[in-house]
Formats: sequence, structure tokens, C-alpha cells
Amino acid sequence: MTDHFSFTVNATDGAARTGEIRMPRGVIRTPAFMPVGTAATVKAMYPEQVKALGADVVLGNVYHLMLRPGAERVASLGGLHAFMNWPYPILTDSGGFQVMSLSALRKIDEEGVTFQSHIDGSTHSLTPERSIEIQGLLGSDIQMQLDECVKLPNSEEAVEKAMRLSLRWAERCRVAFGEQPGRAMFGIVQGGAVERLRVESARALVDLDLKGYAIGGLAVGEPQEVMLRMIETVEPHLPREKPRYLMGVGTPDDIVESVRRGVDMFDCVMPTRAGRHGTAYTRFGRLNLKNAKWADDPTPLDPASACEATRSYSKAYLHHLVRSQEILGMMLLTWSNLAYYQELMAGLRKAIAEKRLEDFVAETKEGWARGVRDGEAEPVGKVES
Amino acid sequence: MTDHFSFTVNATDGAARTGEIRMPRGVIRTPAFMPVGTAATVKAMYPEQVKALGADVVLGNVYHLMLRPGAERVASLGGLHAFMNWPYPILTDSGGFQVMSLSALRKIDEEGVTFQSHIDGSTHSLTPERSIEIQGLLGSDIQMQLDECVKLPNSEEAVEKAMRLSLRWAERCRVAFGEQPGRAMFGIVQGGAVERLRVESARALVDLDLKGYAIGGLAVGEPQEVMLRMIETVEPHLPREKPRYLMGVGTPDDIVESVRRGVDMFDCVMPTRAGRHGTAYTRFGRLNLKNAKWADDPTPLDPASACEATRSYSKAYLHHLVRSQEILGMMLLTWSNLAYYQELMAGLRKAIAEKRLEDFVAETKEGWARGVRDGEAEPVGKVES
Repeated sequence: MTDHFSFTVNATDGAARTGEIRMPRGVIRTPAFMPVGTAATVKAMYPEQVKALGADVVLGNVYHLMLRPGAERVASLGGLHAFMNWPYPILTDSGGFQVMSLSALRKIDEEGVTFQSHIDGSTHSLTPERSIEIQGLLGSDIQMQLDECVKLPNSEEAVEKAMRLSLRWAERCRVAFGEQPGRAMFGIVQGGAVERLRVESARALVDLDLKGYAIGGLAVGEPQEVMLRMIETVEPHLPREKPRYLMGVGTPDDIVESVRRGVDMFDCVMPTRAGRHGTAYTRFGRLNLKNAKWADDPTPLDPASACEATRSYSKAYLHHLVRSQEILGMMLLTWSNLAYYQELMAGLRKAIAEKRLEDFVAETKEGWARGVRDGEAEPVGKVES
Repeated sequence: MTDHFSFTVNATDGAARTGEIRMPRGVIRTPAFMPVGTAATVKAMYPEQVKALGADVVLGNVYHLMLRPGAERVASLGGLHAFMNWPYPILTDSGGFQVMSLSALRKIDEEGVTFQSHIDGSTHSLTPERSIEIQGLLGSDIQMQLDECVKLPNSEEAVEKAMRLSLRWAERCRVAFGEQPGRAMFGIVQGGAVERLRVESARALVDLDLKGYAIGGLAVGEPQEVMLRMIETVEPHLPREKPRYLMGVGTPDDIVESVRRGVDMFDCVMPTRAGRHGTAYTRFGRLNLKNAKWADDPTPLDPASACEATRSYSKAYLHHLVRSQEILGMMLLTWSNLAYYQELMAGLRKAIAEKRLEDFVAETKEGWARGVRDGEAEPVGKVES
């Protein structure tokens, strides 16, 4: 095992890349999908299951963890890895995005953001320095800069203002992070749907010579084509030798299209959240198990899956569990969805290595389309309510 | 594997016995604790976990399953074993107890009971014959007679009336069940807290020559001493060569005391329900993980446990999960509780086989008392709210 952070691109196919991030806690095979472990748990999953599916890294949320159980408490208990029984790499977000989306009474100024907890109304503040401090207390392997993420659509002025503030915060985070050989801090490209601002943000962050670059502020409700255009806009300005992380994305189709455009890392609550709400993602598209049409269906989600949940339980049983609001329904569908996401990533990595990505993408989309044609599934790109 | 139902007592120690029920679907080691799989799932557990803990049989509830997904549907899907991925023995209750406790607008007469579903208000009826038919459709290995279970305390007249009705229903269930070599139907001794009625019920059921005998209508709020006295009253009248099942019991202390008095089988929602509500049962007593005193405790519930959930997660982490209402908290505590219950049963079986049951009971109670003395735990006999 290595004692420092490194990234190697092993193969490319068009703009797509496959490679490895090496860190003291393990190797992250890219393109990678990172299951979201919001409050120190990937919801409804035992950590060893998450690893067994092929996830090399999970995401933790600073906003949730700073409020409960608290970063200092996690540190005193040995760090987030020990706390949640996940000895492999952890990436943490900076807290900024969830402060905007979950907390009340936010006040943003040059210094940072002040907000009230959605749990108990208590007042907290988050500065670039405090965000990095918290991520350090948690023991995070890949830490994200604090940024301001504005809602889209928004005025170009507001988007530009937030992008410039985020750049100044990136610099402060870089200083606060300092040198930590086994860990990395990533910057976040902002700029909304404005190409000029995206390019400026990317160039300025690259000047900071960070370990990796995220594209933030996307998948916040804009059409997929806007998101993909922003990736295409930013990609040429990011160094080839650094990992690229598209934050909060996405559907299987979003992931496939983003990998084609050179993205290396993804995180999204979709497979876990959808699993808790009765939706399955499979090779044959997206299925709503709540639907009465599954009540008498003895077939599993995918008899050829390597995942026990996908292969060994009938749709009729999953339908029954979902209708009965049984915890096992959430457990099985979360498990199956994460398995499908990891299977998709493994397929993408293999296809890139074999220089047959376009064929793989076509086969994958044909599988989803077949499910829709057979009346079994809905398009995978559609976001569930 | 055998093709018929049999029970063998392998060893005794005082009134306590250890033995084996053999059936086509597997061997049930007694004394046995049967996890409750209400709606075709032991809540928050994968079926293979339940088996791995040492559970040889699970319980299914006719009331829940007849309402959703429906007995005929389960039959058309291949039976309850296939439906819920549990190929081992299943015992089903008759539905009577939960009709009384969960449904609205009950009408009981000689023929059976009519009631409204708690799910959608639809009207259903359950007769002795229909209960056995449903249990057959489910494919249940051990089926229970329909009985009328009255609340305690109650008038002797009401208790006697219900006991006599239950006896007539036992006879009708016996006829409806007929001869099913690989399966068994058990009768249920009723009679409230009235010794005379309990004895009469037991004797009349024994005259029916059933495959096993349950003691019903206990653990419904009466003091433990009343329950134990009723077991002592009934036990001499039950045949030594048939299994004895104390329905709906109980706390670890209830189980230990009942095993001492000759009971072979138990079921109870306590370990699973308590697990979903933040309570752990361990060798050191009962712990409420919601309590703030665990917030900084890095120690696991029991470092010597064979169960991963009990051994590998800190109390601080479990506390965090419970406070955050995370599904993983329910999963880990349910797992740990069922592990402790199965560990206790294995300990009881071994102690009886080695004729050291009283020593084992004393050691077990000393463990619980030590937890209470150390301020770590609450008495295990106390029923959580």
C-alpha cells in the first residue's frame, strides 16, 4: 500500500479514461461510483456489503456529521472510518451544498456561512477553514473545498458572484489543508450554466494545483443536455493527470454520458434513495415495485445478476415488501440498486480498457430500451419524484 | 432427511428437556426460539442471517398474510418458503390472536370470527377450517389450531366460555388438517389464570392426540409468577413425547424460567421489535441505546459475541444510528438481539444435555445482574414500553 495520494490513467477511449487513485486506505478504481453514507451509514446497508459490491470509496456529509454526532466526537472515537466500520477510503463533501438545501436562516458572507440546524435549530457556522478542520477531524481521505452552490436557473450576476466567492474559499481551503501526503483536497468548478464562468473557474482552480477537480452545481434540476454541455466546456481545461469528479450525479444514463466525456468519479443518493422508495435500477431499466402489476410475478429483477438481492427474490415478494413498508424491502432494493450501479461502473472500466466503450454504451442503452419496450421498465434517465 | 414429523427428547435436567423435532424441511433443536416473520419477513433481517444465527424455524402470521399478499397468492407463487426465501421449517399461528388484537369490528360465534382488516377495512372471516386451509396454502410445516384468546384479567365465566369454544375449534381443526405426514398441527391450551380450566383444556386436547401442544393466552400482561404457575399447572398433563410451545414468550428471563419448567418452543417479537426501537439484549442485560450515556462509548455491546453486530460496532455508533433513526441501527440491533436469543437457547440446550442447567441459569442471571450493578443495563425481565 502507498503512503501518498496518486492517480494513474491506465487506458483511454475517446475522452473516457479508466485508472486508479491510490491512497493509504486503498485503491479507487475509476470511473468510480461512490455510495452516499450521509450520516456515517450507507442507508440500509452493512458496510461489508457495500465493499463486496465493488465500491472502493463512500461519501460522508460534513453538514450531517458536524451536527450529529459532531466532528470532535467522531475524532475522539477514532475517526469516521472506525466509527462506521469502513476502513477504506472516504470522501467528504464540504458541507456547503447541504447547508444551502437543508438548513434554515442561512447567512453567507465573505467569511463563511452561518445557519441553523434542521435537527434542533441550533446556530452553527462553517468557514473554509472550519470545513477543512471538520474533514480532518473525521479523518477524510478526499476532502472538498467549501463552495457556494446557487440554484439554477439564476441570474448570471448571482452565478458569477458565487463562483468568485468559491474561488476565494478554494484558496483558503488549500492553505488550511496544507500538505497531507496520504490525503487529497479537491477544488470545485462552479459557474452555473454559463460557459465563460465555468472556464474561468476551472482555470483558476488549476492554477492552485490541487489533487483533483470536481464539477459542482450541476444535476440541480437543469436538463441533461445542459449538464453534459458544461462537462464538455470544462473538461479541456482540467489536467489529464488529475481525477475529475462530477458531484451529485446521477442516473445510470447521466453516468454513462459523463464517463464518455471524461469524468472519473460520481456520487449520488439515487440508488439508495430510490431503493428505499420501491424503485429498482437494473440492466432492463427502472422498475417501480409499488406497481400492482408485479404482485404475481415470480421472476427476480435479473436472474443473471451476481447480487443475491437482484437474483434470488421475486418481484412479487419485493412488491409485497414495498407495499407493506417492510424494512427488508428497502434493504433488498438498496442492495440491488448499488449492485447495479457498481456493475455498470465495472462494465464501463472494462469497456474503456478494451477500447470498446461505444459498443458497451450501445448495449447498455439497448438493455434499458428493451425493458421499456417489453413494458417492464421506465426509462432510466427519468428522475423519480 | 425424514419424510414425516417426529420429536425426540435427547436429554432432561429436572423438568427441562432438550431434543429435536425432525421434519422434511429440517431439524428444530429444542428448546427453540422462533424469530417472528410476521408479514413473510423477519423484520430488518436477511433470511440467511436468521438461519446463520441458529434459528431452525421462523413464525408466520396468518392474520397478516391472509390480508396481504393473500394466502391463495402465496400458494400460486410456490408457498411461503419460496416466497420469503426461507427453505427451512415455518410455524404459522392460526390468525385468531391477531384478529383479537389488531382488527376492528370483530364478531365471534360458534362458526368462527368475522372482522375488518386494519389495512383497508375490508371484511374477512376466519373459521377453524379456513385457518387450516390458509396455513396449508402457505405451506406451513407446523400449523396452529384457531382459538379464542381472551384478555386477562377477565371473568372466570368468560375465560371458561372461550376455552370450551377453543376446544371445539381444536376438534374441527384436527378434522380439517387430516393426515399430513410431513407436517404437524398443534392444539392450544387455554383457560386464562384458572388452574381448573387449564387442566381441563390440556386433558381434552391430549385426548385429541395432536402432534404438539401450545400454551396460549399467557404473556398478555399478567405477572411472570402467574405465567409460570400456569406452566407448572399444565405441564404434568402434557405428554412427555410431544413438543410444548409457549406462545408469544418472551423476555430472556421468561424463557429461562419456562425452559426450567419443561417448555420446548418459544416465539416473541421482543428481540426484533426492541431492536427496531433502540434496545439491545445482551449477556449483560438490557441496554437502551437511545440513552445519551452511550454517546461517547467506544466499546461494543459484547466483545466476546460471535455476532458481528454485537462485537464490531461501538455503543457510540449504535447510539448515533438510533438517534438519527437510521435503518442500519434497526438492522444491527435486531441482528444482535436475535443473536443473543439464539446464543441463550444454545446455552440452555447444552446445559440440559450436560445436566448443569441450574448452574447455567445462575451464571446467566449473574451476567444480567452484573450489567445492572455496573449501571450499564436494566433488568432483562422488564418489558420495554
